[in-house]
Amino acid sequence: MDIKLANWDEFKVGDKATISKTVTETDIILFASISQDFNPLHVNDAYAKTTQFKRRVAHGSLSFSLVSGLLGTTLPGPGTLHVSQKLDFRKPVFIGDTLTAEAEVVEKFTKKEGTLKFLRIRTNVVNQENLLVTEGEVLVIIL
Amino acid sequence: MDIKLANWDEFKVGDKATISKTVTETDIILFASISQDFNPLHVNDAYAKTTQFKRRVAHGSLSFSLVSGLLGTTLPGPGTLHVSQKLDFRKPVFIGDTLTAEAEVVEKFTKKEGTLKFLRIRTNVVNQENLLVTEGEVLVIIL
Amino acid sequence: MDIKLANWDEFKVGDKATISKTVTETDIILFASISQDFNPLHVNDAYAKTTQFKRRVAHGSLSFSLVSGLLGTTLPGPGTLHVSQKLDFRKPVFIGDTLTAEAEVVEKFTKKEGTLKFLRIRTNVVNQENLLVTEGEVLVIIL
Amino acid sequence: MDIKLANWDEFKVGDKATISKTVTETDIILFASISQDFNPLHVNDAYAKTTQFKRRVAHGSLSFSLVSGLLGTTLPGPGTLHVSQKLDFRKPVFIGDTLTAEAEVVEKFTKKEGTLKFLRIRTNVVNQENLLVTEGEVLVIIL
Repeated sequence: MDIKLANWDEFKVGDKATISKTVTETDIILFASISQDFNPLHVNDAYAKTTQFKRRVAHGSLSFSLVSGLLGTTLPGPGTLHVSQKLDFRKPVFIGDTLTAEAEVVEKFTKKEGTLKFLRIRTNVVNQENLLVTEGEVLVIIL
Repeated sequence: MDIKLANWDEFKVGDKATISKTVTETDIILFASISQDFNPLHVNDAYAKTTQFKRRVAHGSLSFSLVSGLLGTTLPGPGTLHVSQKLDFRKPVFIGDTLTAEAEVVEKFTKKEGTLKFLRIRTNVVNQENLLVTEGEVLVIIL
Repeated sequence: MDIKLANWDEFKVGDKATISKTVTETDIILFASISQDFNPLHVNDAYAKTTQFKRRVAHGSLSFSLVSGLLGTTLPGPGTLHVSQKLDFRKPVFIGDTLTAEAEVVEKFTKKEGTLKFLRIRTNVVNQENLLVTEGEVLVIIL
Repeated sequence: MDIKLANWDEFKVGDKATISKTVTETDIILFASISQDFNPLHVNDAYAKTTQFKRRVAHGSLSFSLVSGLLGTTLPGPGTLHVSQKLDFRKPVFIGDTLTAEAEVVEKFTKKEGTLKFLRIRTNVVNQENLLVTEGEVLVIIL
């Protein structure tokens, strides 16, 4: 076992990382199984066609989950506690969309005489047309 | 098909609903598969034992996903767009914990001469000991 | 935790509830993984094209599973034991079909001097063209 | 592709086949994702402890799904249409139980001058203590 833990000293404002994936119908069904979110807009084609979207929409939290993957594995990676997060949902995500989550360090600070080390990270998600679908910001403690 | 859509007029400040479930290892694995969040704190027992938690911790977004289920199916239910959400992570969630998400309407307002109808909803999650694990607030538009 | 249990006294003959969803390929694969039912009619496109159906058919039990969801969560809901069920399969279900399960209370009776409280519920499933795909009846005890 | 189809002429009354598996928590979560059956008796430990069962119970339809696997792959196997089925639920199934489904041909007949060929099959499921958990019977057409 050789796990590289996040090291606060190595991060600087402006550091960036991205992660991408295509949203599949499987993602929607599995997310429904976790969340119990069987809103018909997500799981009922006949209903979804009657809405302004004309087809099923992915769960907003699902599009955000990719951010969770990026934060947990890459930037900042293991050894981090999530303190808080904000999300603004800008556009719907559909099955087949390819999402790219980007994390960018926007602030670095300490509290309690340097014993608590924080990063503020902007976490935006765009689709394959580079349209912003979710705008976000997360505050983490590096252990 | 007989889907009851959310009706802004029927909601009032103080309306509440809850949803409960036990967090399982399956939830963690499925959420990792969706999010690519294979942070060893979630999926690596040997590593998790070396941390302050002494065992694997569930993804923070996973504990929030139950809120998604409550909003999407019950309060306010189908016919809603999520505008934004805030989350504060207070305590870790472990496999076997039984979570209860509670949604409570805290504000009701309109914009653009009444054509856009909003609800602000507090979305807290507690565990089986009634300890607050996630504090949240979401803003939705009722279509 | 705030769980509303089924109350036999509150049900009457004629009570109805419905639930709808679109059948996805994911449902078929997950059901196969649970049931070990990898009949090629469900999971083998090349074979399915050689049959009278010309494409893959969903598992019959899968179309019935939606009835399980309706009974377990809505009518009659938690606090119920399933005693027996009958099913007649009328039409095949395909990927992309949107199914609606309807439960309707058709009989209400007690046994053993009122200590065992039963409901007989008709459980039919129709597709998006309102064609009956599965006809069923279930007997439950309300605890 | 070399698929052996069921051949009505080769079956005789008394033919038997079995299939076994251990019921896991994953089965319960995945079945919930397909069926939307998040009855707290299945997914909420804290609630389940307050019931007569003292722990979570598997979905009844889940225990039957193993029968579907046996019918679809082995006896009678591919090339069969399910006409109807009856189920009696005798005992609860818990996580960790190992179930064995047994199919036994109990009747063989034709209709419409031999063009429709039927089998009636008894489909019982027992647990690891050989206790009958589900009693069933299915009628199939061999194509």
